[in-house]
Amino acid sequence: MPFCLKCSTAMELRIPEYDDRLRPVCPVCGHVHYTNPRMVVGCIPEWHGSVLLCRRDIEPRLGYWTLPAGYLENGESPLEGAVRETREESLARVVAVEPFRMYPLVFIDQIYMMFRSRMEDAGFGTTPESSEVRLFGEAEIPWGEIAFPVVRETLEDFFACRRTGDFRFEVKEFRTREAFFREPGREAGTGA
Amino acid sequence: MPFCLKCSTAMELRIPEYDDRLRPVCPVCGHVHYTNPRMVVGCIPEWHGSVLLCRRDIEPRLGYWTLPAGYLENGESPLEGAVRETREESLARVVAVEPFRMYPLVFIDQIYMMFRSRMEDAGFGTTPESSEVRLFGEAEIPWGEIAFPVVRETLEDFFACRRTGDFRFEVKEFRTREAFFREPGREAGTGA
Repeated sequence: MPFCLKCSTAMELRIPEYDDRLRPVCPVCGHVHYTNPRMVVGCIPEWHGSVLLCRRDIEPRLGYWTLPAGYLENGESPLEGAVRETREESLARVVAVEPFRMYPLVFIDQIYMMFRSRMEDAGFGTTPESSEVRLFGEAEIPWGEIAFPVVRETLEDFFACRRTGDFRFEVKEFRTREAFFREPGREAGTGA
Repeated sequence: MPFCLKCSTAMELRIPEYDDRLRPVCPVCGHVHYTNPRMVVGCIPEWHGSVLLCRRDIEPRLGYWTLPAGYLENGESPLEGAVRETREESLARVVAVEPFRMYPLVFIDQIYMMFRSRMEDAGFGTTPESSEVRLFGEAEIPWGEIAFPVVRETLEDFFACRRTGDFRFEVKEFRTREAFFREPGREAGTGA
């Protein structure tokens, strides 16, 4: 049970007024500690048929390849967050940013929202988070070295949609860790 | 500055390791207090061309009409949350739930995600949160008594889409309070 972040008192588990579930409530100041799912936002940066991947220079999954993505911050929209993360992790500037997939990962209270995007120019480069940044054609994707299952899922969905030309937005839920890691070859590790 | 919810120490504003912005950090146990935007999820429950609205029996905006919606909880997907809120606020059971609009309200760090849905049967009724629950045809919508601008926006978008038959998912961002309340007749009050 957490301490109250407003007044530092030890909190109690109670059902707050006008609520219907147990929450940590401060017996002194009445503050309720809510915890809610977090959004992770990211991009598929496209450049003339190739997509930009970043080799992680930070844990977890250091050395593995990922799409630029990270936690949505207060004060920004999901689209703005996806553009910011892309710039921070790859130096690439993206435009024509369109919602592509939402992947609620219910078992870890994360909601990934991945956008398609076009790189504004050929500029990109390494960053404190990425030891290598590279464009990959579909046949070159390093499937065995992808950092997180949700990145693999995004890339698979993207290339499948590219074959049909139908990039309609879809929500694909993963309620359990087992459902998420159902496919052979998927390895541990999710996160921003 | 908040107290540490893990150890109750007064926190300090610092840039955590591997981060790039100031956050409340505990100088004793190292806990970082992140705050992130919250998702609000809700439904447009449809029944033979009419939509189900709830008259709020709770503050804020008591007595005004709303679509069923509320904060997404840990352990559920946005779709599940929208179905749950619909049941809690109107007793209606909905099926064929499809993502319709996302409205990031950047100025209050909320992200509304509204789903279209079909009521499974004609059942609905009042609840602790709703003093009245009623089906409305488009011509009957009480536009002057809608609880929140985002509900008005959802209903306007829904009826506009119904005229064209194109219900494609869209994200409509509202970065500022001013942009959100730009239309005459819009009154104060947003929230779940």
